[in-house]
Order: sequence, then structure tokens, then C-alpha cells
Amino acid sequence: MTLLEAITGPRDLDALSKDQLVQLAGEIRDFLVAEIAKTGGHLGPNLGVVETTIAIHRVFDSPRDAIVFDTGHQSYVHKLLTGRQDFSRMRQSGGLAGYPQRSESEHDIVESSHASSSLSWADGISRAFEMTGQHDRHVIAVVGDGALTGGMTWEALNNISDDNNRRLIIVVNDNGRSYAPTIGGMARFLNTVRTRRSYRDLYVTSRKAFDHLGAPGRAVYRGVRGGLHGFLSRFTNNEALYSNLDIKYIGPVDGHDVEAMQEALRQAKHYGAPVIVHAITQKGKGYDPAVQDVADQFHAVGQIDPETGESIESATAPSWTSVFADELVKLAAANERLVGITAAMLRPTGLHRMAERFPGRVHDVGIAEQHAATSAAGLAFGGLHPVVALYATFMNRAFDQVLMDVALHKAGVTFVLDRAGVTGPDGPSHHGMWDLSILQVVPGIRLAAPRDAPRLREELAEAVRVEDAPTVIRFPKGGVGSELPAVRRLDDGVDVLADDPRQDVLIVAVGPMAVIALDVAGRLTAQGIGVTVVDPRWVIPVPQSVITLGARHRLVVSIEDGVRVGGIGTRIRQDLRGAGVDTPVTELGLPDEFLAHGSRGEILAAAGLTPEQITADVAAMVGGRKLPVARPLAADGTNTGSIPIGVRPGA
Amino acid sequence: MTLLEAITGPRDLDALSKDQLVQLAGEIRDFLVAEIAKTGGHLGPNLGVVETTIAIHRVFDSPRDAIVFDTGHQSYVHKLLTGRQDFSRMRQSGGLAGYPQRSESEHDIVESSHASSSLSWADGISRAFEMTGQHDRHVIAVVGDGALTGGMTWEALNNISDDNNRRLIIVVNDNGRSYAPTIGGMARFLNTVRTRRSYRDLYVTSRKAFDHLGAPGRAVYRGVRGGLHGFLSRFTNNEALYSNLDIKYIGPVDGHDVEAMQEALRQAKHYGAPVIVHAITQKGKGYDPAVQDVADQFHAVGQIDPETGESIESATAPSWTSVFADELVKLAAANERLVGITAAMLRPTGLHRMAERFPGRVHDVGIAEQHAATSAAGLAFGGLHPVVALYATFMNRAFDQVLMDVALHKAGVTFVLDRAGVTGPDGPSHHGMWDLSILQVVPGIRLAAPRDAPRLREELAEAVRVEDAPTVIRFPKGGVGSELPAVRRLDDGVDVLADDPRQDVLIVAVGPMAVIALDVAGRLTAQGIGVTVVDPRWVIPVPQSVITLGARHRLVVSIEDGVRVGGIGTRIRQDLRGAGVDTPVTELGLPDEFLAHGSRGEILAAAGLTPEQITADVAAMVGGRKLPVARPLAADGTNTGSIPIGVRPGA
Repeated sequence: MTLLEAITGPRDLDALSKDQLVQLAGEIRDFLVAEIAKTGGHLGPNLGVVETTIAIHRVFDSPRDAIVFDTGHQSYVHKLLTGRQDFSRMRQSGGLAGYPQRSESEHDIVESSHASSSLSWADGISRAFEMTGQHDRHVIAVVGDGALTGGMTWEALNNISDDNNRRLIIVVNDNGRSYAPTIGGMARFLNTVRTRRSYRDLYVTSRKAFDHLGAPGRAVYRGVRGGLHGFLSRFTNNEALYSNLDIKYIGPVDGHDVEAMQEALRQAKHYGAPVIVHAITQKGKGYDPAVQDVADQFHAVGQIDPETGESIESATAPSWTSVFADELVKLAAANERLVGITAAMLRPTGLHRMAERFPGRVHDVGIAEQHAATSAAGLAFGGLHPVVALYATFMNRAFDQVLMDVALHKAGVTFVLDRAGVTGPDGPSHHGMWDLSILQVVPGIRLAAPRDAPRLREELAEAVRVEDAPTVIRFPKGGVGSELPAVRRLDDGVDVLADDPRQDVLIVAVGPMAVIALDVAGRLTAQGIGVTVVDPRWVIPVPQSVITLGARHRLVVSIEDGVRVGGIGTRIRQDLRGAGVDTPVTELGLPDEFLAHGSRGEILAAAGLTPEQITADVAAMVGGRKLPVARPLAADGTNTGSIPIGVRPGA
Repeated sequence: MTLLEAITGPRDLDALSKDQLVQLAGEIRDFLVAEIAKTGGHLGPNLGVVETTIAIHRVFDSPRDAIVFDTGHQSYVHKLLTGRQDFSRMRQSGGLAGYPQRSESEHDIVESSHASSSLSWADGISRAFEMTGQHDRHVIAVVGDGALTGGMTWEALNNISDDNNRRLIIVVNDNGRSYAPTIGGMARFLNTVRTRRSYRDLYVTSRKAFDHLGAPGRAVYRGVRGGLHGFLSRFTNNEALYSNLDIKYIGPVDGHDVEAMQEALRQAKHYGAPVIVHAITQKGKGYDPAVQDVADQFHAVGQIDPETGESIESATAPSWTSVFADELVKLAAANERLVGITAAMLRPTGLHRMAERFPGRVHDVGIAEQHAATSAAGLAFGGLHPVVALYATFMNRAFDQVLMDVALHKAGVTFVLDRAGVTGPDGPSHHGMWDLSILQVVPGIRLAAPRDAPRLREELAEAVRVEDAPTVIRFPKGGVGSELPAVRRLDDGVDVLADDPRQDVLIVAVGPMAVIALDVAGRLTAQGIGVTVVDPRWVIPVPQSVITLGARHRLVVSIEDGVRVGGIGTRIRQDLRGAGVDTPVTELGLPDEFLAHGSRGEILAAAGLTPEQITADVAAMVGGRKLPVARPLAADGTNTGSIPIGVRPGA
């Protein structure tokens, strides 16, 4: 039995010696490489936090002490130390989630994996502990340097620094990267600290001086102007980033030295007020293929050969991302006003191709979607046309900026939303299923959902020609699939994909749901039902010909890869009624729930979005039997098995 | 003719002497007090920026140089200097907007009045100027210290500091306040600088040293490590807030010394890279009643006596805000787990009453709605029930946090949205018209819209008892009006307000639209049409009895004070169809447009939301004639007269 196998919970760490902790760290690394090579997952980030996580669980007592992981993809080690060592179905339906999940363990607290939120969570939790007399409970937020570029962290630090009366430890896991190297002035500062050879010495000096005070001295120390950060700022020539916010600072510490990390965390624990522990780590640590990977150090991988790190997945069709990336390079070559904006995801969004070809014309703004949207409005004012490439789920962060800064000012800005709809293994916080619903309420906005590669190319080209409104192109994760040619294109740009003179049912297919729509059409036709299938291409505003066709059919069925509440289907129905047409409309889409991780196919099937199910339902409707079209997976709005936050583990 | 009357544009300032500029400042103050006393408006903030605005227009050449006001309520002086001196209908329909508005003047650029966005705008504009070869154009962002608590400013500064190659001047208008005193560690730092007696001397020292370099020296200076901020940090014991972000800093400067401000701005202009000019100002400067007002220094006033500052508006009915404020105090007295959160709007949201009664239980997090929502989820985890009181329009800033942090985690957090729906004189960025549409897509959320004071009290009490989901109570600006008793309450909490055995039309009234609904019902009944009026009280999820009643009527009409796209009406229709009911549903609400300033009555009338118009439309529908129910005010999604941002004034 390995040391790792003997760990059933964090307190099993208590009995281990210094040497055994080092051995355990090695076993964990071997485990991670072997297991994630089989399932895929976030490898690089977890290899980077092995010792840090061990140290946190040694020094603090989870779940009485609350550990909050920012973004959460670096929680695999935490899972291993809290009784979850079956990684065989990691990120698959029924297997472990790739992020913390409250239903898995009382040791998990925050499961949202949108970056930069951990300090706000920790501020709230620590304040509540203090207000409710739970003075012996600590809160530990583990946040990467990349996440610190997000504005939420500033809002939180500004508040945390205002109230010293709680037990809050912020572990800055500084590996110099988000996906790619972290940008901005803050990163430059951290880099200065990180690359200074003497950082170990600095820490030792700081530690000795602190220890020298003894327990009573440390208590007094809290009140001393200057405090811990004084040591750092004295040595680093006034560069202490957070000294002005009056949050005490310990570090920098070698995040791969488990002893040093424990030492620093113990100091922080006994301090009794908010403290930042600055840990320097290396993403991919201990696994050569990851360390050597300059792109993103194996941030997230598919199945790989554990020896070489080479992908062993069979070559797939071109992805939506790559079609976008290549087309943008072409458009940028022809139009020098086009500029690219990414929020710390240059490669994942494909913008790196434009950046390589036109280096000065792509800007990484950090994990800062709000700034991405508003600065894009500014770029438009200055005469450029920005293309802001984001994951659909992260667009939610910038709703207000799209509305108030881009749309109100009629700025020509194109948003390209990758990973729209059901994404699969990343779980509830990564499905891009709300974008259509919230963006369609933005006045003047134009939304396109391409069904295949040629449409993505042409719709992108159309989008960047719009100079007086925000435009959005959204497409899913994965392979782009086969071309789906139109039977004909109508005057307003709507593509008719299937036609039948009987005109019983009009199926309006949003984006790649066209594949399912055509399948359904074939099945219904075989049953003697006449089906027309259209792809509006631009789904908002609803094209006139969709309304005209709707008036001629007995039933309209919309199919979208997004939540059906407030979705494109509801807009079609509203516009039909506005035109005096009362053809019944059935909106098919994702249920009004948080969807757990699983494959895209599994999730769509659970939501009833299969050709078989849709065919059966529509046939029943046309036959006169009206069926409920909402398919709730769970009555309480979630199928993630999550438990109300009021249920407090460890309280 | 006064000096002010002779100013037709900023270049008319050029000929004025030092003494004349001082005289002009006095004239502007007299004008502002006299005019705003008559119309109401943002008095305190504008009295505080008189000299700063004059100095900016003297040193820079608007509109070639772009002046961006954060939030924009302090742009009255800018309006006076750019040819807009008729304040007689300020904030009224057809009169000047209370914020910058592109359709009013080529000198106005950013008209959104949500805080903390100006630095992102300025980052984008200055970057575009640089990329398009417009190297002689400057961008000046004027931002208050309060707005710096918002995370967007951090995101922007992190980017601005990363690229020194643009002409960007950030004027920090530091009056120590947002509405009320600014909170947080950053404010404490600014306060330290501000209260140090020697800040004038510091500035002079800094200036002399800079001037001493001469023009060539200054050019070199850009490359010198330390730069301008070195002067400040040396004198202020390492407290230079932004020195770590490597943005150069000039100041602090007395923002009421027009000569000193010009001097500082000229230095900043010639510097050729991003510079912060820190101006210390006093909100309400020069007007005693404002200076003496400790609450908010006349941030925004109604009609007042210009001599005394006393309100001369006739006493109005109790406001929705005060009903909420008083009820919350009662609930908090009975339940010690209740805590209040405000985002820099303690008084405007009424939370000050709870804060006065229970001092430790209300937290002002600064202008930081994202942090407000997520830290509230943390407070819920720790065992408390937070009540987050915001204006409805600012809820848009925290959509992602409500979704991912509150709802996904089933946190019992109550959001109270004041100023929901049409607010009136503040214009497009203050109407709270999108809250119902975007929040209804959050799984598990419960939304209430009280129709009168008793319902606000009871729904608030119901909301704070929900411990496993976000709850929202939304109500409009202004007086709460008369009580609207129910004929009876149904088992699921739906109130029937009017009844008719004929059951022709079911009107579902959202919140205070019940008044209009009852008026319509009376008129339709007189025409022989049987009308039932219900108030669902909790509008999301749609109560079962609304569906049951909908099945029994010939037509369902929903009336909501929010955008009809994706609104409550669309959800009722969707749930009806889900239950196999195809009763036609007409959703009445605000059009899918940005709505200009005007009175609430004028705007509702323009949108067709009057008893007369609704009666006529519904009668026609019941009579079989189907009318368009969408009433677009403008074809392009705006009636603010705004012009596309691509139209570049001064280019």
C-alpha cells in the first residue's frame, strides 16, 4: 500500500514525517500523470499545487476550516487527500467532477469555476464566522496569479483590508500563468519578485524576525504599523503590491517546499487577521513534458501517453475554434481595422493564429471580461473593429458592459463565443447555455449561430461589417462536422434546409442543432408529416421570413442548444404574435437547471434533445395530443446533486 | 453679459486671464445652484468639479482630445463649457440629459452612467488612437475615488500599465465619497494623502523637479525607473497606491486651484504616456448647504430653495424605499441572522435605517456589485441571510455572480432591487428594465414584484425565509401609492384582484402595473368583456393557478414594467404551452430599446402602457382583430437619439 492509498481524509496526514510528506508528494504526481493520461483533465495546474495542498491540509482542519479554490481546476490533489481517489471516470458522467463539488464531499465548498471569485467568497465566509461567533474557524482561499487580473479580486481585497477582524488566509499560487503567461502590470510586479534569486533568503529573514517575536510579540505585531509586509517592501524596493491595502504579506515562499509552506501557513494561521501567503510554484512541476510545453504547460489535456505527453486521441475533424481562427486571419489580412481581444485565453479561443500573423493587433487583457467588452467599445470609438473571443459561459461576466457600453453606444464590436451550449465534462459552470437568453434582450444586438464551417466563415465576415451594433457569433465545443448545404437561401438570408409542400411543421434550427432537425424531418416525413427546416443564420433579430413561414405551418418547433427559458424560441413566438400569427410554438432547448458534467451526447439525450425523442413528441403534437415540452431533470433546478449552501459541513 | 454667457465652446476659454477663470468658476457655481434648485439634479458632484473641468478644457482640445466622464453625473460644467447653457428642462423630456449624451454634443463620448467603466473606455480609445496613427489625440478620463472601488478599474489599470505607448490622462477626482464616504483600504490610503497638510508642498516639489528637467529631460524621464511617482512615494512613506502598476502619478493637486490643475494637466499632456493626476476636491464646494450636509453633500437633489438648500417639493406619499427600509429593520430585529449589503448606496437604498439600528450588521462594499453578490453567498455559507439592496439597473453587473455563486450553490440570499422598471429622468442607463428578463433564467431563483406596501412587507418577509435559493424583490422608484386589496388569495399565494364569471381575458399584473390592470379591467367590463385580474406576487416560478386560470380564459394579457423581450409574459406563455394550454398570450411591457430620459408617465405612455391604449388593444384582440402588440419607438433599438460610435467626432 502506498502512502497515498492510506490517506482516507486530511487528518491521516498528521502522522506523516517530513520525509513521508515528500514521498507522498511524489506518489501524488505519479498518480496524477498516470490517471489523467487515461481520462484527460487539468494536469499542469494540479502538478503545480501538490505540496501547497498537502501543507494546507496539514496546517488547517478541513472542513471546519473552509478551503476555497479559485476556479477549482486545481483541486485534484485536494480530492485525493479528502477521500476521493477513484479517478477512473474523472469528468465523466457518474465519475468525479473536474472541479470541487459539494455533493461529492463536505470538504468542497465553492464549485463555480469562473475565475477571481474566491476572495469574495472568503470575505463573506470569514465575516460570517466572525459575526456568528465561530472564531476558531479559518478560511483559506487558494488563488492563482492569473485570477488576480480579474476585477472581483480588487473589489474583495479592498473590503478584506477594511476589516482585520477575521481569520482569512489568501494563498497566492503564483506560477506566472493563467492559461498562458499572466499579463499586466501586476504580473510584471509578481515576476520581479519571483525571478529574484534571493527570494528564499528573503522569506527566511522574514520568518526569523517573526518567530523572534514569540507568541505575545506576534499578537502585538498586528497593531504595529508596517507589519509583516514591511519586510518585503524593505527588500524589494517599495514594490509590495498589496502593502497599500494593508493586508499583511508572507513570502515569497517556495510552493514546492512542503516544510516551508507549512511554516508560512502556520504563521498566517496564528496571525488572526487577513494574511497573504505568496507561494511561487511551477505549473506542470515534476513532469517534463508539461514543464517543456511553452504554450500552456499542459493546462488541460485529453488522453496522452504518460511517458511522452503525446496525445493518443485519434485525429478529429477540424474544430469550430480552428475554423474561426483561420477565417479571422483572412479577414484581418483584408481589413486592417480588425483587432482581436482575448481574456487570458489566446490559444483556447484560437486568437493565437491572428496574434502570430499580426502581432500588434491582438491584445490579451487578462481574466477581465468586463474590461474586454468596454475597452472594445473604446477601440470602436477610436476607429477599429474589435473581435472579442471568449467562452460563452464567461460572457455572462460582461452582460452589463455589452448592454451599456457596446450596445447603448452603437459600437461595432463582434463577440465570438466558443464553447456555447452543452460543453460536456467541465460541468455546470462551463456550459454556455444562457448566452442566447441574456444577450437577446440587448437592444440592437445581432446574434448568429452557424450550423457548419461555411456558415461560420460567412457569418463572421458579415459580423465584422456591422459598424453600429454589437454582433455575436456563437458555436459549440468540438469538431465542426459536415457541411449542411441549404436547399435555397431566402432573400433575408434564411437558409431553407428541407422543404415539403404539405407545410405541417416548421422546424427552426439554431446553429448546429440543424443536424438533429434534419434527422427529425426525415423521420416525420416517413410518418406522413410535412416538415420544413430553416436555419435563420442570424437568429436575433428574428428574420421576417421565419415569421412568414410560421404563419403557413400548423406548428413551429424551435430547437436550440441553450436554455429554453427566454431563448430564441420565445422570441420567435413573441414576434409571431406581434405579427398577428398564433401558430403554436414549441420551444425545445435545455431545461432551466444546472447541468452536471457528462458527455455532450449524454446531456442532450437527458434533456430530450435526440432525433428519436423530438420526433415522437412532435408527431404526438401534430396528432393533436399535447405533450409537456419541458423535461425537467430535477424538480429543484439542479441536477448536479448540489446541496443548499445553508447546509454547513463541519459546523 | 457674464463671462459664462460668452462661452460658446471650449476654445472661448483660451482668451481668459487667470482672474477671469476664477470669476468664471464663481459664475458657474451660481448658475448651477440657481438652475438645479429649480429642476433638481446632481448638484454636489458638479460643484466639486468646476475648476477641474475648466482646466481640462483649457489644456486639452475637445473633441479632438476625448474626455470621458466616469458615471457622468458630474458633466454639467462640461455641458456649460461646450455650448449647452439652457438648463431649464434638465433631465426632462426634450431637455438636456443629466449625463453626457452623444446626440447632444460632439464633446460627449461615453453616456453610460454605470460607474468604474471610464478607464476601460479610455484604454480602448487611446489604444485605437495609437494604432491608427492619431498620435496627437489625447484621452482624458475623469474618475471619482468612489468609482475606483469597482473591479473594472483594476482590470483597466492592469492593462494601461502594460502599454506605455499612448496619450492617456486619468484625472482622479478625489472627494472621499461616492454617495457616502468611500469604503475600503484604497479609500483609507487616499485619505492619508488627502489629509496630510503638506500636499500642496508635495505637489510643488514634484512639479519643480519635473520642470527642472526641461523638455528633452522629460522625454528621457519616461524611461527612468521610478519616474514621477518616485516623488510621491518618497514623501509618503511607500504609500503610492498605483506605483506598483507603474503608472506615473502627479499630485495630489488642489482641484479647486484652476492654475495648479492646468499646470498638472500640462505636465501630464506633455508626458506622452499614461499619467494619473490626483485632484483633491470637495463635493458641494462653494455652496454651504451642500458642504454642511454630512449624508451625501447634496449628491442629487429635487427642487430646493437656493438660499437654504431646503427641499421645496410638496410632501409625497411614503416611498417604496422607505417601506422596505422600515420593514427590514423589523425583520432584522426578529432575526439576528439577517445582514444588509449595499454597494456604496446606503441611503439611496434605505439600508441606513438598519445600519443605524444594528451598526455591525450592514456592510457597504463600495461600488462593487460583483463582490456584493458573491460575498453574500459566502455569508450564507457561514450561516447568515444577506439582504443585498441595489438599484435594479446595477444588478446587471452581477448576473454571473447571482447565477454561479448564489444560485448554483443554493445560497439563501435576498436581492432587493429598487428603481426597477422605468425610472424617469436619469435616462437609458438607469431604467431598471432588464432585471426580470435576465434573472428569470437563473435556475431555482424566486422573483417577487410587490404591487403595494403591504405586499412589499409580506414578500420581503417571505423572501428572507428562503434558505436554499436566491430571492429577488423588485419595486419602482417613487411613492408607493394606495393599497390594492385582493378579492381573495388562492392556495398558491396568487391574489385575485378582480373577478368576472365570463372569463374572457386574464390579465396578469406584475407588481405596480396592477393599478393599470384594474383600470383596464373596469373599462373592458364596461364594454361587456369579462376580465379577471391576478397578481401572482411571486412571478417566477409562475404559480400553478396562473396556468389553471389561463386555460379557462380566451386571452391572457401580461403587463410588466420591464422589457417585454424575455420577460415574465414569455415565461407564462411557455409554461402554459408546457401544460398543453394554447390560450393566446399577449405580453405587454417596455419595448426592446434604450429609453431616453423623461417622466415615468411620459415613458410609459410612449410605450403604450396606459389604461386607454391597453383597453383599446385588448378589446380589438377579443373582437378578433389581431393587432401588433410591439410598439417600437425607434426602428434601430434606441430612442435616445444616440449615434453609432463609429461616427467619430473630431476625427
